[in-house]
Amino acid sequence: MIDTSVSKMGGLESPSGPPDRGGKFMGEPNGKETVIAKPETLMTFCTDVFEKLGVPHEEAVIAADAIVGSNLRGVDTHGVIRMLVYSAKLRAGCVNPKPNLRPLRETKGTALIDGENGFGQIVGYRAMEIALKKAKEVGVSCVSVRNSNHFGTCARYSMMASSQDMIGLAFTNASAQIAPTGGAEKMLANNPWSIAVPAGERFPVVLDMANSVVARGKIRQAAKEGRSIPPDWAVDKSGQPTTDPKAALEGFLLPIAGYKGYGITLMVDLLTGVLANSAYGPRVQGLDIVEAIGGVGHTFMAIDVAAFDDVAEFKARIDAYIDEIKGSKKAAGVEVIYMPGEIEFLKMEERRRKGIPLHINIVNDLRKIARENGVPLDL
Amino acid sequence: MIDTSVSKMGGLESPSGPPDRGGKFMGEPNGKETVIAKPETLMTFCTDVFEKLGVPHEEAVIAADAIVGSNLRGVDTHGVIRMLVYSAKLRAGCVNPKPNLRPLRETKGTALIDGENGFGQIVGYRAMEIALKKAKEVGVSCVSVRNSNHFGTCARYSMMASSQDMIGLAFTNASAQIAPTGGAEKMLANNPWSIAVPAGERFPVVLDMANSVVARGKIRQAAKEGRSIPPDWAVDKSGQPTTDPKAALEGFLLPIAGYKGYGITLMVDLLTGVLANSAYGPRVQGLDIVEAIGGVGHTFMAIDVAAFDDVAEFKARIDAYIDEIKGSKKAAGVEVIYMPGEIEFLKMEERRRKGIPLHINIVNDLRKIARENGVPLDL
Repeated sequence: MIDTSVSKMGGLESPSGPPDRGGKFMGEPNGKETVIAKPETLMTFCTDVFEKLGVPHEEAVIAADAIVGSNLRGVDTHGVIRMLVYSAKLRAGCVNPKPNLRPLRETKGTALIDGENGFGQIVGYRAMEIALKKAKEVGVSCVSVRNSNHFGTCARYSMMASSQDMIGLAFTNASAQIAPTGGAEKMLANNPWSIAVPAGERFPVVLDMANSVVARGKIRQAAKEGRSIPPDWAVDKSGQPTTDPKAALEGFLLPIAGYKGYGITLMVDLLTGVLANSAYGPRVQGLDIVEAIGGVGHTFMAIDVAAFDDVAEFKARIDAYIDEIKGSKKAAGVEVIYMPGEIEFLKMEERRRKGIPLHINIVNDLRKIARENGVPLDL
Repeated sequence: MIDTSVSKMGGLESPSGPPDRGGKFMGEPNGKETVIAKPETLMTFCTDVFEKLGVPHEEAVIAADAIVGSNLRGVDTHGVIRMLVYSAKLRAGCVNPKPNLRPLRETKGTALIDGENGFGQIVGYRAMEIALKKAKEVGVSCVSVRNSNHFGTCARYSMMASSQDMIGLAFTNASAQIAPTGGAEKMLANNPWSIAVPAGERFPVVLDMANSVVARGKIRQAAKEGRSIPPDWAVDKSGQPTTDPKAALEGFLLPIAGYKGYGITLMVDLLTGVLANSAYGPRVQGLDIVEAIGGVGHTFMAIDVAAFDDVAEFKARIDAYIDEIKGSKKAAGVEVIYMPGEIEFLKMEERRRKGIPLHINIVNDLRKIARENGVPLDL
């Protein structure tokens, strides 16, 4: 059962399909610094590592699928690049490999779950499963989780709903990097959130976004290259807008859209960390420090389409909506209008066919993890 | 019962308090062009007008409270300035004064309501009432509405939840003004949405936002004054960014935060007009044309705090959160860090005390409506 729903989510829908040349092949532009990996190879590797580190098999598959699924969708920042920190955290005993995810409070439509410092990708998956079950019963659900960890991409959870003809919403808080509007202290994270809506013949419509204008990495990159940054990316440590990436790195990220994004990211914190009585504001811990306990809060909601309409009619309406948007007049020079999430689906189709390109440094990290844990890696 | 819940929402909490000088007094800076109105005067006037135009008394109070409540909160664009078009629409038979708001579909946690082209403020209020009742029963709810009209500010509905110790979410679609990212055709509206979270001793935290960078009126103002506009406000009719307000007025508004705001506003349309099988995309009608039937879709959600925590403990946590944000380090030159919605609450306290300042042109419009409908107006 678990394997089916995992694959439905876009992890590994066609395990027998290409790529098929032993984990390495020249499926796409590929210099000396890039290795092309078969998704199956990475899936097996990640599962093996997690099992070696004490995660039960079924849960290890869930976590591996979340990670490799991110690579497949082109969201490489949440893919196997993180195996180094995930395995270090499990090895150091800073993430619980076997949390007991029972509800602390429960109603027909809601549950509060203690994540028991479990692996975020597993806790999130199990919590969304509860949300889907409840929404099937009463039409809508809301499951909030305390004491979890970074759970990867929000879209993974919202898309669990869309693959079951439900609308899914997923929210999480994270470690603080943003100052409030008018502030000069990091009080808020970019607190990502996602909404996924099922379609018929088309790809589901999937919004998955963080609330900062850019990630910190982009500012680091500008600093490295000696470029200035746009004035809406960050403020310096005194809270003033800056175009100097070095001053920005000593300061704070800015939320999208000024005070509107400040409001959105604050609300996501209230809906997750505060509602679940988990950590919130500046006390949430990210992945950077192996010893840190995350204290992350998530909230998942599902809305059963069947409670509102004939499912086929709804999905036909979504298809028509997509066709209308994509068929609308384009700006000069634009060839395609994309729907939210469409680029990730196209990337997934491509990478299922051609494999996942990995920088050699990442491959070397994976090899190191393989050695450390006595796990094979055919890469 | 209705009066209590209306007043709780911030309409007229202290009907016996100031202002107290017959509808006109010099409560704040007041030139020849400004008249200060007592909220009670406007409340009575709006209620009377709606009743004269066929709206039952109880529903007329709901609508009036929404409108005057907007003025009290400083959101004058959704206040009595709209009485001209509301009364014209009712008079022309283009809004139904007595919709029969029965659910078309219903589960324990959800309902689909036909708004029967009713007055948006009444339809929205009644739909949120259903959402609150359901959330009290199963912990969470989702009520979607088709065939409604412009319902005023989203915060009115989300705050109905926060005043009953629930988290409220309200979404609506609207008439299209925005091109998709990469597009050159108005396909999407600024589709406002709101989240309200109850606090203890502090004001509730209330996000209420539209998804365009600015309203069209700001571009009109710039054109009038011969000023250029920032390049992220709008595109010209070919879809190119422009700083020329005249070219912008022939083109389309831009969503907040680029493709992220495009995704948000599209999602709100899917969650409202498409879910409810109401109008959506470019077919939703705004208030501008008296004869147009709105076809607006709304969706309301409520999350019962008691399903997740002891309510007092949750509210104390929100208070602590607010104090922490407001007490955090300020940027140079900043005196106050505001919470989402705080400015509106402060404005409401001020206007309850001092009255609502109205431009003489608006007062003259109200006098005209009073004459047309044979309704007294002590202003």
